[in-house]
Amino acid sequence: MSNDLTIQRTPSAVEPPLVIHRILEAGIRKSPEQEIVYADKFSMTYRQFGERVQRLAAALAAQGVKPGDTVAVMDWDTHRYLEAFFAIPMMGAVLHTVNVRLSPEQILYTINHARDDVILVNSEFLPVLEGMQDRIETVKSYILLDDDGVTGSDSLPLAGEYEDLLAKAPASFEFPELDENTRATTFYTTGTTGLPKGVYFSHRQLVLHTFAGRNTMAGQGQGRFNEDDVYMPITPMFHVHAWGIPYMATMLGVKQVYPGRYEPATLLKLLVSHQVTFSHCVPTIIQMLLQAEAAKSVDLSRWKVIIGGSALPQALARGALERGIDIYTGYGMSETCPLLTLAQLTPELEKADLDTQVDYRTRTGRPVVMAQLRIVDGEMNDVPHDGKSQGEIVVRAPWLTQGYLHDKEKSEELWHGGWLHTGDVAVMSEDGWLKIVDRIKDVIKTGGEWVSSIDLEGLILQHPGVGECAVVGVPDDKWGERPVALVVKSGDADEEAIKALVSDFADKGIISRYGIPDRVIFVDALPRTSVGKLDKKKMRAEMV
Amino acid sequence: MSNDLTIQRTPSAVEPPLVIHRILEAGIRKSPEQEIVYADKFSMTYRQFGERVQRLAAALAAQGVKPGDTVAVMDWDTHRYLEAFFAIPMMGAVLHTVNVRLSPEQILYTINHARDDVILVNSEFLPVLEGMQDRIETVKSYILLDDDGVTGSDSLPLAGEYEDLLAKAPASFEFPELDENTRATTFYTTGTTGLPKGVYFSHRQLVLHTFAGRNTMAGQGQGRFNEDDVYMPITPMFHVHAWGIPYMATMLGVKQVYPGRYEPATLLKLLVSHQVTFSHCVPTIIQMLLQAEAAKSVDLSRWKVIIGGSALPQALARGALERGIDIYTGYGMSETCPLLTLAQLTPELEKADLDTQVDYRTRTGRPVVMAQLRIVDGEMNDVPHDGKSQGEIVVRAPWLTQGYLHDKEKSEELWHGGWLHTGDVAVMSEDGWLKIVDRIKDVIKTGGEWVSSIDLEGLILQHPGVGECAVVGVPDDKWGERPVALVVKSGDADEEAIKALVSDFADKGIISRYGIPDRVIFVDALPRTSVGKLDKKKMRAEMV
Repeated sequence: MSNDLTIQRTPSAVEPPLVIHRILEAGIRKSPEQEIVYADKFSMTYRQFGERVQRLAAALAAQGVKPGDTVAVMDWDTHRYLEAFFAIPMMGAVLHTVNVRLSPEQILYTINHARDDVILVNSEFLPVLEGMQDRIETVKSYILLDDDGVTGSDSLPLAGEYEDLLAKAPASFEFPELDENTRATTFYTTGTTGLPKGVYFSHRQLVLHTFAGRNTMAGQGQGRFNEDDVYMPITPMFHVHAWGIPYMATMLGVKQVYPGRYEPATLLKLLVSHQVTFSHCVPTIIQMLLQAEAAKSVDLSRWKVIIGGSALPQALARGALERGIDIYTGYGMSETCPLLTLAQLTPELEKADLDTQVDYRTRTGRPVVMAQLRIVDGEMNDVPHDGKSQGEIVVRAPWLTQGYLHDKEKSEELWHGGWLHTGDVAVMSEDGWLKIVDRIKDVIKTGGEWVSSIDLEGLILQHPGVGECAVVGVPDDKWGERPVALVVKSGDADEEAIKALVSDFADKGIISRYGIPDRVIFVDALPRTSVGKLDKKKMRAEMV
Repeated sequence: MSNDLTIQRTPSAVEPPLVIHRILEAGIRKSPEQEIVYADKFSMTYRQFGERVQRLAAALAAQGVKPGDTVAVMDWDTHRYLEAFFAIPMMGAVLHTVNVRLSPEQILYTINHARDDVILVNSEFLPVLEGMQDRIETVKSYILLDDDGVTGSDSLPLAGEYEDLLAKAPASFEFPELDENTRATTFYTTGTTGLPKGVYFSHRQLVLHTFAGRNTMAGQGQGRFNEDDVYMPITPMFHVHAWGIPYMATMLGVKQVYPGRYEPATLLKLLVSHQVTFSHCVPTIIQMLLQAEAAKSVDLSRWKVIIGGSALPQALARGALERGIDIYTGYGMSETCPLLTLAQLTPELEKADLDTQVDYRTRTGRPVVMAQLRIVDGEMNDVPHDGKSQGEIVVRAPWLTQGYLHDKEKSEELWHGGWLHTGDVAVMSEDGWLKIVDRIKDVIKTGGEWVSSIDLEGLILQHPGVGECAVVGVPDDKWGERPVALVVKSGDADEEAIKALVSDFADKGIISRYGIPDRVIFVDALPRTSVGKLDKKKMRAEMV
């Protein structure tokens, strides 16, 4: 646009940038005496939190940290991590949240790739760093985080212990004025193959993600997050800033409970003793909690939980709802900061029966404000919103990573056509609810249609003789791809019967006729990756 | 800041601008079948609203409107105005909301000063424009808005009637991609003297104001604005976009009720028939409504009302609370878009007794998120937050006018020192609640202290012989200024008794000893402006 359409600015006028300093300020202003706790180990008020953020910045500055530097954290979910969420970006430095669950080699790769200058490291992870010390390239200083009485390292030169350094640092720090596009955070995402890829977010992006999330989560309906809630994250702070919800919680000024490492007994104890009302986690965690012996006597009926990371199985949702838990799905990914959609019920759906609620709560949800989602075919044409037509989800929003760190090629792939490609295949219903049906690399593109491998597997598994099943697409000159099913028998089953079963489903309109497999191959076990996921890449390779 | 601290952008990556198109999109996506009504005259769903916004844009484009043009509206609060709130800025044009309560000469001044290209005019205001037709400089086209069967003008060349033009226009319009700093709206503010001054706001500013307002107003506490509310504005849409709340209401997807002209009987009827739960108005309107005969039989106990524009008298707040109305104060001004503070109660204060609630609900409130407020003395030093020290409120926020249109000198004055000067004098309590005590031009600066003329008047009025009172500061070589009181007697009163009364209050610490007036002058009537406000400028001039 030509410049003369934009507003005129008086030379002395200030239009303040969107920086996370304002989020912290809002929380302290609203709830100076509200509590933030780390398990049974530490407690502070928001007022003290504000002072400690300044002390941390002063302590880091004393270690030579300056705007543009990168400061890494290796810790479980603690008040220290929350302090780092603010102090490091507020200094103009970049917070690198290290995924401590990666292999040592991958951790080393991310530390070197992000060019970390300082690492704040929990004593539990000292051995990891000690083992790779001579291969760490850019780190000048290590700060010890400790809950267990560890005071030093045999080989790693430690600048000091966190609480000691904070106690010695001045209680006030002059934070610089920042451009809102200043880099604030970075972290790494890992696929099934290849090296970890770095994503990164600016102050502006974090502020707008906070605003949009708060806007969608606030209110009086189902699953809402408000001032009177007590918040405890159960997705790690090193993973997409715990979905960015600590920033929303701080802006709101609610009580926050950080649980450290996720152990069912600890989590349940904290849930009860602090009367936690709002959390988020992956399906396996909630399953683990519900199955824990200690959970049986606990009242969970005031607990709201957003589920993400992978699909929420209907049976699990039903089980949680029967325990009184207000459970529902959120969707996003590391590249998207992460929030894109939430499966919050409309007022009408809140009155619906359990089956209907389970159906909606386990869908991918509806887009949050400012997020633009499209479902497109291979040529970036929108597919109809009819609840059936499949396409890839591509998105725009003011908080998406603008690429992968130091990787132009993968960045261009991610953003080709000016939309961020999620790699997820979904259908959109007429009433605007999104439902993911597959990953795009697993979907079978045949006869001009997209057939979900996951849908097809679900249907084949209904045959009483099928124990396990995986479907992949194999190249076909005429049809592009054709589905081939790998089956582990649990009883009597043969190729013709399985094809006939799928054909019956096709007659009923449940799946496309193109979905009837060309071949059914019986195997003793399905190929899996080292973490136990189906290895469809290997299956496809073996079948060509 | 140097550029290398900002995030890297992949060439194909898009970071979408903050434009009001996204607000409209969010509302339609959320509540396509929700209603928006104009009194008993018109009703549409959000889906239809979205289509009509496109038709309006197409109709305006057919009149030659292009990005950068200015389109004025002269109307009461209607669905048409809401359509203009979106369609005109979304085209890249500027919406000029004409204050139809100004004198014809002032209206003419604003039309020419804003360089309006097109005017949408309610038939009721045709005579105003007809009477000044040959002095209107830039308008090329007039569009008629009508509810009363008026079809034309004797002299004004009308391009057509609004509904006709929309019906003929295509149902879809390709809105341009806009820079977020594109000018979106402009309107004029009038002081007691001088010409109207134009303020202006960008897309970014309106979006951030909407986000911040929604963030502060949402939730489960007192006075909150949520999806299940029914919204009706009772501050005009030509005045600071009805405080920007129509944008919040649209983003939320709530039912909206536009009342047209403000007549007590109509407002009460709409309140009841649409079960309105959320409004905002000036004190005189709520007073008028409460006193209306028809109001006596109406249940107002589900109605939340934000009061702004002038101070909310405690007696009025008490009366409203006794009727069950959830009444509280908001603070802002034309220059600030307007929202700066809200007097929403904390959970503790919600449990407080009526007197305490009245006290807090009638204060100026606490800052909304992202707004930075300071209370400063004449040298821009912060005064203590002790509930007593007075200073001028200066502000920064991402949604303040960046100056006055075509007026460099007044713009620099507004923004001197890099903070927007509100001209309001306030005290801030330790718990962060703001209370306005005076206008800076009326405060008496004496002996290094600021004494509120309004406080002083309130104390003098407690003398049984004083009927009316005004206090002004007159120049004094030694003290800077000294207070002089003008008094209209209602009984027995003399100068010494009044000075002694103020001296007693000073002994009790209620007012500074510098507040004891130098002189008390008895008059038959206080000088007032044409609109009935105390004319302190005239008083000061006569006293020098």
